Amino acid sequence: MQIRLNSPLDMHLHLRDEDMLKVVAPLSSKSFSGAIIMPNLVPPVTTKEELIAYKNRILEAIGDDNFTPYMTLFFKPTYTKEFLSSIRDELTAIKLYPAGITTNSEGGLSGFDINELRETLTAMSELNIPLCIHGETNGFVMDREAEFISIYEKLASNFPKLKIIMEHITTKESVEALDKFDNLYATITLHHLLITLDDVAGGMLEPHLFCKPIAKRPEDREALREVAFSAHPKVMFGSDSAPHPQHTKEATHCSAGVFTSPIALQVLTELFLEHSSLEKLQAFVSDNAQKIYSNIEVPKKVVILEKKGFKVPMKYGEVVPMYAGEKLKYSILF
Amino acid sequence: MQIRLNSPLDMHLHLRDEDMLKVVAPLSSKSFSGAIIMPNLVPPVTTKEELIAYKNRILEAIGDDNFTPYMTLFFKPTYTKEFLSSIRDELTAIKLYPAGITTNSEGGLSGFDINELRETLTAMSELNIPLCIHGETNGFVMDREAEFISIYEKLASNFPKLKIIMEHITTKESVEALDKFDNLYATITLHHLLITLDDVAGGMLEPHLFCKPIAKRPEDREALREVAFSAHPKVMFGSDSAPHPQHTKEATHCSAGVFTSPIALQVLTELFLEHSSLEKLQAFVSDNAQKIYSNIEVPKKVVILEKKGFKVPMKYGEVVPMYAGEKLKYSILF
Repeated sequence: MQIRLNSPLDMHLHLRDEDMLKVVAPLSSKSFSGAIIMPNLVPPVTTKEELIAYKNRILEAIGDDNFTPYMTLFFKPTYTKEFLSSIRDELTAIKLYPAGITTNSEGGLSGFDINELRETLTAMSELNIPLCIHGETNGFVMDREAEFISIYEKLASNFPKLKIIMEHITTKESVEALDKFDNLYATITLHHLLITLDDVAGGMLEPHLFCKPIAKRPEDREALREVAFSAHPKVMFGSDSAPHPQHTKEATHCSAGVFTSPIALQVLTELFLEHSSLEKLQAFVSDNAQKIYSNIEVPKKVVILEKKGFKVPMKYGEVVPMYAGEKLKYSILF
Repeated sequence: MQIRLNSPLDMHLHLRDEDMLKVVAPLSSKSFSGAIIMPNLVPPVTTKEELIAYKNRILEAIGDDNFTPYMTLFFKPTYTKEFLSSIRDELTAIKLYPAGITTNSEGGLSGFDINELRETLTAMSELNIPLCIHGETNGFVMDREAEFISIYEKLASNFPKLKIIMEHITTKESVEALDKFDNLYATITLHHLLITLDDVAGGMLEPHLFCKPIAKRPEDREALREVAFSAHPKVMFGSDSAPHPQHTKEATHCSAGVFTSPIALQVLTELFLEHSSLEKLQAFVSDNAQKIYSNIEVPKKVVILEKKGFKVPMKYGEVVPMYAGEKLKYSILF
């Protein structure tokens, strides 16, 4: 049996820079037609020059033109309509991080005062630039995402034409919020469809499954699975694949991030099949995103998967992927 | 200012065996008069010969006679009254592990059928041998301890003369259970008075703070602090200090356990002082335990602490202690 996916998209991806970029970018372009590229470099991407230069470094690392990096800026409340208009052609979305909430987010936003945000968010609305948000407060780790819902709701109701993407949602509360406001959307990762906190810390502690937002409770995973396996039109796949060198994961202080780019489509195929939802996979990994992000052009790429064992490498460069050393049931056929 | 503690006791301690025992046992005997020694060696301590041999290895590792290892057996439902009578003089308590719930607990109990346990628990009741329990189900990691309360209650009501110690409690539900049954008691660790899941997984992931039961929510820590700082007569200090070599903590699969023996009294002193509860520390670290465990003899030892910085070593042997490399406010004066 072969499974055909047309132009899969990864709507939330960390490619980092320099040597790491060179290792991981080709792994994404092998599976996907394009990806929303996170701007949390050090320093973050906040100018047109930086954005174009980063895009060029990504294209160079990939070395073929059958993958589009959809570029984003790191949100600043000082972006004017004039600035955003000038960069509109290069820009797919803007990513907002609350300050200090995850890797390289130190320069993020410290408050959500609507008046301070009004000019930038109104301009984004008018220019049809989606706002992607890492939605966590700095509260208790298991509550942070649910506590952030009220901020999503405030933004959604104050800027009803602004497309707001709740990135990498992990809770039933976020799933419920999806249907409350027309302009709220969400990405869901592979790992949050698979694991709960039990997999991270219920047996041994598993640093390679530690991510932000942290994996939550079984009932949360169930809520995510429900909207993913039914390809709810407001959800789309975003891996949040985040490469960290092994020595920064197996360490006294372990960085947050799960690396899934090279295994995502294979595992999604197996998972959707297992849950009798294979016919929804195309919408989840591409069609929904194309409708939600009405402003993107998607390179045509057909990815064929077949039922043939794929032994996941222990490492890609210095990065340990999810399922390292294990055998997956599906492979990508080239 | 000097603080004097009379015969401090650690009512839950892992000393392991062989080289590790030689490293960690002297660190406990430096601070404490005695400790309840956990029996989860590989294989676990289940016979009189093993128990006496282990006790002798501990005494040899310590090399002085001013510390008593209170020995325990690994619970088996096959222990008869005759067997327990024969070992009574060497035995302080019996430790029950649900199967597979923590380090070296594979041979633990798989069910809690009162009829199967009746003979052993009745004999323990009659011989005044306390039953120490690692009270977790195999449910979701944040719920395991609260789910186990019904088993504590079943045991407590069926064996009203049996002293049942809820070991290393971490939740408000366990604190509440304390007052429901006369024969339920609890130990509380240092680390569960200090940390929540936020400290383990809210920022970077911190393997050296990963333990079982996992640290819970802020309101749980608050409930533990309330009974510890008031030296509730049914609670006593038990460090659950568990040494693991650094390479098994900073690893793909990280072992559960926090190593606190050499810093416990210093940090408890600072913590109780900070919470204006210093006058309760003596009861928490010794007097309560002596009343609850009416069957122990306690070597007289006076430990003097003074307000003088103590820089915690980065390692003791291969073990990274809690607060490694940090400076504590109080030192033990010898």
